[in-house]
Amino acid sequence: MTDQDLLNEAIKEAERGLAEGGLPIGSILANSSGQIIARGHNLRVQTGDPTAHAETVCIRNAGRRRDWHTLTLVSTLSPCIMCTGTSLLYKIPRVIIGENQNFRGAEELFAQHNVQLINLNDPACVKLMADFIEKHPDLWNEDIGIPS
Amino acid sequence: MTDQDLLNEAIKEAERGLAEGGLPIGSILANSSGQIIARGHNLRVQTGDPTAHAETVCIRNAGRRRDWHTLTLVSTLSPCIMCTGTSLLYKIPRVIIGENQNFRGAEELFAQHNVQLINLNDPACVKLMADFIEKHPDLWNEDIGIPS
Repeated sequence: MTDQDLLNEAIKEAERGLAEGGLPIGSILANSSGQIIARGHNLRVQTGDPTAHAETVCIRNAGRRRDWHTLTLVSTLSPCIMCTGTSLLYKIPRVIIGENQNFRGAEELFAQHNVQLINLNDPACVKLMADFIEKHPDLWNEDIGIPS
Repeated sequence: MTDQDLLNEAIKEAERGLAEGGLPIGSILANSSGQIIARGHNLRVQTGDPTAHAETVCIRNAGRRRDWHTLTLVSTLSPCIMCTGTSLLYKIPRVIIGENQNFRGAEELFAQHNVQLINLNDPACVKLMADFIEKHPDLWNEDIGIPS
């Protein structure tokens, strides 16, 4: 699978989250052959778990393993500092994002830790998130830790 | 409750984790009156969830809320970059740790974000962790993302 193919799978996860009434953010983990080894989407609204951002859910779904340093993390949106930290804990060396126009996370930390960050600037990802933020500003602010 | 009282409750969580066959790391969230509002311990071994570090579990257990900026996070050990990132996402302003001799996490990030970090240098915390690392070096290395 190409980087765009992987992002398209992350977009499917985001759409799943939106259909469930949650935030439309999706994530994929792929191995070095481009095979998907885990998927996840934001479940914060669906489960009440404040740590259930898409990337953290995806890493959780990958289970206990020791090959993190060979994987690629894909997200429809620039990861927040929690998801960035989770990715850095496990030394995931490559991160593909759909966009960082609606939200720019802790991208400087990826650079500091020599993680390769690839932004595909995908219009579908930008639209998914912009539409959601316009309709549900309060859910979005809660997601990124802004006090009410 | 004093800071040491809160740390003692985090130590109880760590001991609970150890008794379950997991890593002896415990965490507490307290409000500005010193009341405990959530507890957690490392559940990585017990549940197979690679994100189940003590502090992340504790924040998960606190559920959806908007008062994070008034809380104190307590941990028996200096938080790793994932747990630091989770705490920073939600703008938790004050972090109490038992020790950072066995592991020093991403403490510089707390400083960069003006989080008050208090290290109680607690001998019980140091011993709990040192004993575990000596007996289970591989479980410990997996916990902090070192490839096997």
